[in-house]
Amino acid sequence: MIVRGGLIQASNVKAPTADISRMKPADVSRELAAIKEAMVRKHIGLIGEAAKRGVQVCCLQEIFFGPYFCSEHDKRWYGTAEPIPGPTVRRMQAAAKKHGMVLVVPLYEVTITGVYYNTAAVIDADGRLVGIYRKNHIPNVEPGFREKFYFKPGNLGYPVFETAVGTIGVYICYDRHFPEGARILALHGAWLILNPSATVIGVSKYLWKLEQPAHAVANQYFVGAINRPGREGPWNIGDFYGTSYFCDPRGKILVEGCREGDDVVVADLDLDMIREVRNVWQFFRDRRPESYDAITAP
Amino acid sequence: MIVRGGLIQASNVKAPTADISRMKPADVSRELAAIKEAMVRKHIGLIGEAAKRGVQVCCLQEIFFGPYFCSEHDKRWYGTAEPIPGPTVRRMQAAAKKHGMVLVVPLYEVTITGVYYNTAAVIDADGRLVGIYRKNHIPNVEPGFREKFYFKPGNLGYPVFETAVGTIGVYICYDRHFPEGARILALHGAWLILNPSATVIGVSKYLWKLEQPAHAVANQYFVGAINRPGREGPWNIGDFYGTSYFCDPRGKILVEGCREGDDVVVADLDLDMIREVRNVWQFFRDRRPESYDAITAP
Repeated sequence: MIVRGGLIQASNVKAPTADISRMKPADVSRELAAIKEAMVRKHIGLIGEAAKRGVQVCCLQEIFFGPYFCSEHDKRWYGTAEPIPGPTVRRMQAAAKKHGMVLVVPLYEVTITGVYYNTAAVIDADGRLVGIYRKNHIPNVEPGFREKFYFKPGNLGYPVFETAVGTIGVYICYDRHFPEGARILALHGAWLILNPSATVIGVSKYLWKLEQPAHAVANQYFVGAINRPGREGPWNIGDFYGTSYFCDPRGKILVEGCREGDDVVVADLDLDMIREVRNVWQFFRDRRPESYDAITAP
Repeated sequence: MIVRGGLIQASNVKAPTADISRMKPADVSRELAAIKEAMVRKHIGLIGEAAKRGVQVCCLQEIFFGPYFCSEHDKRWYGTAEPIPGPTVRRMQAAAKKHGMVLVVPLYEVTITGVYYNTAAVIDADGRLVGIYRKNHIPNVEPGFREKFYFKPGNLGYPVFETAVGTIGVYICYDRHFPEGARILALHGAWLILNPSATVIGVSKYLWKLEQPAHAVANQYFVGAINRPGREGPWNIGDFYGTSYFCDPRGKILVEGCREGDDVVVADLDLDMIREVRNVWQFFRDRRPESYDAITAP
């Protein structure tokens, strides 16, 4: 079976201005709502483009609907979080249904007042909300990624989702540095892991094509890795370097997006390769879980 | 602190002849003893070469003292296993003491009659036997690696060893496909992992510079990866491709051995880099062990 996968990377339509810090609260809300609306519309257009290219499962970038704001500590961003389902997810459910496409939609989630997660909603090809994944590993990496201020660490473990394209999993950005969750998603049966990221050159570029291909090889599944493109004002913490890619269970990068600007990255993912690779390398037969206790030690 | 590390890869001095299958048992024993003696002598010479180059910690290739026999099922190889300490380890203890060098000596181990492990002895710079590591993950990969016939899976977990060059760990060959043990060695405090391997081009070459650099990055330590060189008769299962290397905690390969033939691969390993990398990427702070239970599920 071959599944056509898509990854969408998109630069910001509208960055918050430096002046925002001097705006009245109501004006700030309006500014942030305008940013979000512009990004949602842009993405609905890009999803349509992916649909024209036959994409059956598609993932957007991390917190797709605005700039990646974690380089500052400002509680105004809390106001951009939404419940799931909420207005943005409902629009994406409509897009998924319209195109018959499985959609993974990463956004900023609020549960109860004051509790925020970095989350992705998984929507089936019929528009049904299948479930959510909450980013488990939260960095505070300087400069630019003061995420512990914004995101409570995920409390849902490493779920997988039964969809029209089979069992898939989600891992978000910083999660990719942790082989444990990548392994657990495989043990739970995922054949494809989608990882939306937001990361800049100086911090992580040298790791971008090492860690996730290694997860693909160790766990014998496909990986779709998304990074946003461009510089984001007013912070300018560095270049988000795009180059979203799909990688196969042999660790080979199948297709790669551009470094700057928007892209819809498409690849045909041949599920038979998973069986072939697992028939040669019987990693799951030969694991020694009884020897791995130290992994779960507090 | 800078530690000079060494990796020794060495082709077989003397391969068993095809005729061995028609020999009398006593002649077979003599043949295998001659192979082992030639390899031990050769390695003592190469260790001396490493010492001249200032190497402070050195690892030999997997079951260094003979051909990698796992492509056939023949119990005659059981006879090459030794207790630890035993005659070969004692000679290596003398070499370690002579050169003031920490030595990791991988060999075929027998404990009680009929129980065999794929093991590495860790010898400190004063010649003291510090401990042993027993390969935990045992493959049966066709063609060439019918290891479940020869090796009981390791029963000692993932120990680390306090030596004159600090806390080091050992992982052996097929172990490298399993991120779990690589992680546990870091949790136990190792700054350097030495992995002696025996692997041929068709089976694993495309993974050689992916998996272990990824372990180095995820766990923020140095890795020394050894592979033997050459073809080994009478089986000729393929080219053991040498290219032993050291890799730093950023996943960068520092030095690489030749593809064919003997080599003493030497690199200066700067331990300060581990602190630098861990100060930027706080992976050990941000792990979520309470969410990793599935890793240890039977």
